[in-house]
Amino acid sequence: MAGFKHLLIVKFKADCPVDDILNGMEKLVSEIDAVKSFEWGQDIESEEMLRQGFTHAFLMSFHSKEDYTAFVGHPSHVEFSATFSGAIDKIVLLDFPCVFAKASA
Amino acid sequence: MAGFKHLLIVKFKADCPVDDILNGMEKLVSEIDAVKSFEWGQDIESEEMLRQGFTHAFLMSFHSKEDYTAFVGHPSHVEFSATFSGAIDKIVLLDFPCVFAKASA
Repeated sequence: MAGFKHLLIVKFKADCPVDDILNGMEKLVSEIDAVKSFEWGQDIESEEMLRQGFTHAFLMSFHSKEDYTAFVGHPSHVEFSATFSGAIDKIVLLDFPCVFAKASA
Repeated sequence: MAGFKHLLIVKFKADCPVDDILNGMEKLVSEIDAVKSFEWGQDIESEEMLRQGFTHAFLMSFHSKEDYTAFVGHPSHVEFSATFSGAIDKIVLLDFPCVFAKASA
């Protein structure tokens, strides 16, 4: 699963409807072909000192940087981004070509 | 690629030998069978405001939380963690069961 990655680390606002946001995200990526895969999770294990308040990670994979750019500019993404931005307390976002250092079945 | 994930977002210290650290990490995960896959990358695209100084992401996948726990307690990991900790300026760490919301070839 090399290619280009779009990674978000998020802390949601206390009063935001997290499930609605998660459903919206899954719907968004399912609709846009440029998104090759989408994995996410909620932290259950890290220590608060290391987690620093962040609770969720979202990782999208693309075949190429061009596919990522197409996703960012997609009207559905632009629309959802506004909703998403309103729901987050803090965020870190990284976009990078992925180095696949180990893969096994 | 569901299972359990160990995600690190890192900013390295200005004077640290990043390549040595990266090589050490690749060696570490290649030696420990519990690590199913290891992907990493260096941000090239995100805006500084959203990146917040973080430069690298590291994502390790495990078949289960038990495999992750075995990795954490492995002597090679304990030894490398000390080196790694000395090289980082800041870090966020998240450990989570992965939800696979979209997968395509």
